[in-house]
Amino acid sequence: MTNRQIVVAELPKGALTPDHFTLSEIAMPEPAEGEVLLRTILMSIDAANRSWLQGATYRDAVHAGDPMPTYAICEVIDSRSPRLAKGDIVAAESSWSTYVTRPAHKCQKMPDVKPLQHLLSVYGIAGKTAFHGLITVGRPVTGETVLVSAAAGSVGSLVGQIAKALGCRVVGIAGGAEKCAWVTRELGFDACVDYREPGLGKALRAACPDGVDVYFDNVGGPVLEAALFAMNTRGRVVCCGAVSQYDSTAPSGPRNLPGLVVVKRLRMEGFIVMDFAQDDAKAVRALQTWVSNGQIKVFEDVVEGLENAPAALIGLLAGENRGKRMVRVGPDP
Amino acid sequence: MTNRQIVVAELPKGALTPDHFTLSEIAMPEPAEGEVLLRTILMSIDAANRSWLQGATYRDAVHAGDPMPTYAICEVIDSRSPRLAKGDIVAAESSWSTYVTRPAHKCQKMPDVKPLQHLLSVYGIAGKTAFHGLITVGRPVTGETVLVSAAAGSVGSLVGQIAKALGCRVVGIAGGAEKCAWVTRELGFDACVDYREPGLGKALRAACPDGVDVYFDNVGGPVLEAALFAMNTRGRVVCCGAVSQYDSTAPSGPRNLPGLVVVKRLRMEGFIVMDFAQDDAKAVRALQTWVSNGQIKVFEDVVEGLENAPAALIGLLAGENRGKRMVRVGPDP
Repeated sequence: MTNRQIVVAELPKGALTPDHFTLSEIAMPEPAEGEVLLRTILMSIDAANRSWLQGATYRDAVHAGDPMPTYAICEVIDSRSPRLAKGDIVAAESSWSTYVTRPAHKCQKMPDVKPLQHLLSVYGIAGKTAFHGLITVGRPVTGETVLVSAAAGSVGSLVGQIAKALGCRVVGIAGGAEKCAWVTRELGFDACVDYREPGLGKALRAACPDGVDVYFDNVGGPVLEAALFAMNTRGRVVCCGAVSQYDSTAPSGPRNLPGLVVVKRLRMEGFIVMDFAQDDAKAVRALQTWVSNGQIKVFEDVVEGLENAPAALIGLLAGENRGKRMVRVGPDP
Repeated sequence: MTNRQIVVAELPKGALTPDHFTLSEIAMPEPAEGEVLLRTILMSIDAANRSWLQGATYRDAVHAGDPMPTYAICEVIDSRSPRLAKGDIVAAESSWSTYVTRPAHKCQKMPDVKPLQHLLSVYGIAGKTAFHGLITVGRPVTGETVLVSAAAGSVGSLVGQIAKALGCRVVGIAGGAEKCAWVTRELGFDACVDYREPGLGKALRAACPDGVDVYFDNVGGPVLEAALFAMNTRGRVVCCGAVSQYDSTAPSGPRNLPGLVVVKRLRMEGFIVMDFAQDDAKAVRALQTWVSNGQIKVFEDVVEGLENAPAALIGLLAGENRGKRMVRVGPDP
């Protein structure tokens, strides 16, 4: 058994490139008392990974020389803890590595879900983020208009489908005509606006004739600025991410803020999925219901091989994925 | 009796100047059936007046040639409605004029408050704005830190005193050392930071060693950006105004937004005082309690003479007032 690991060679200043990472073979780790040895099966690839390289966020800063952190689904292949047994499937804060050791109490034993990929998509952080952000923070009501940026992404694709299941008019924002067509055709959104085309504000007004009641923002920047103009009085802006800003050395704030927030009495509210962990079981039950009755279609975008993780993340930041992107490091058991 | 009126001669593009207004003598208006003739006693001067000249906000746009709108305290001197009698004191949406006619049903009869000035300050829009914004939107808890910009202004001076009455640590932001000293000495704030000095972020950190839980924002722009860095997790930003942006031809948005809103799980929420009209009686009762027990000191900044209204507004936008600014057009009855 050989162990491979990808390290952050250098912190990015501007756009992330493959040169910011190094792949190497390292020694097989040995679990200490209370630890488990994990085989990585799937690693979640998220826009938030990029923000971790900008300094401390809701988690510690990553430094040059550190293994790249990740959220992963793993198999326990050796255990020195009574909490977990060989063969258990767990989710863990891990790193871009084939094998890692972790304290058993920091691993979360997963229920029996097949395929395991769903533990990173609809029943994982993406699904829970979409559910908690839309339902608890955005509070849409049947008949309202919900606007979602990064609509083809892991979270956005689920936000829109949940909003449709709740009886809302759903409009996406995505990059490129082909992707917008996919969002309406495959995800069932009522409309999707291409933010790369000129005239975003006009396009949003046309796509949202009754204005926007809930804007689920994954991107920040100029798209947020355009969306604020389209908001209705007492609209809610769910602040989930700012992917347009992560690669930027000159971030720009929405110039209509706070003016429009006052005039339109908007509520903008940020959240992190972990804040709502006490309601995760409720979220998963609702998501299972929508999946089983066909109201949510699950799209997964699986990149094969640990060595392709840097390219998978860089491509995600460029918007090449459809649905939840992940890297498969090894086979399901 | 002669009637005088100030008209908006031209809409400002950048900074407001006296040239944007013209004073003229006009005919004495005659009330129609259902109307009253009003003698203007006091006119409220507010930063929001400037925003009305930028286009439609929460009220109709003002056009060149229109009398400058204002909120005023007036005496009914002739009535053609059973709703109001000669001698009644009313509040009305009026204009910068010595005499106006208004539909009686659009005038709000005022309770017997002396001096009448208090109807524009602590028991008027300023006091209600401070109360509803801080209590209902900001929801401070005893022991939390409340930060207030435009701290010497009509609303800010009351927000801080209310927060002190609730047992919060209160920090102001104001322009100039002299004004900051007035805020701590006269209003009793725990500290006040001069935003005109370099190093605002550092000064805020020093003045708020436990971080900021509620930021009551009257100004927007770079001060909002600096305040966002000082916010605690789950902090609340009460969006009341954006006075730093009203005179600007190149508004700037906070560059740390929405990134910090996500990471810190902030709630930013805008409001307009009229949204909470159903709770105005509650607000006034609370304010009366604090005034009578000395926890709120009322500061009023009265400019004499209708002809000085443009200078009063221009000076307010430059920050020259202490407490609630108003123009006295005629004597109390």
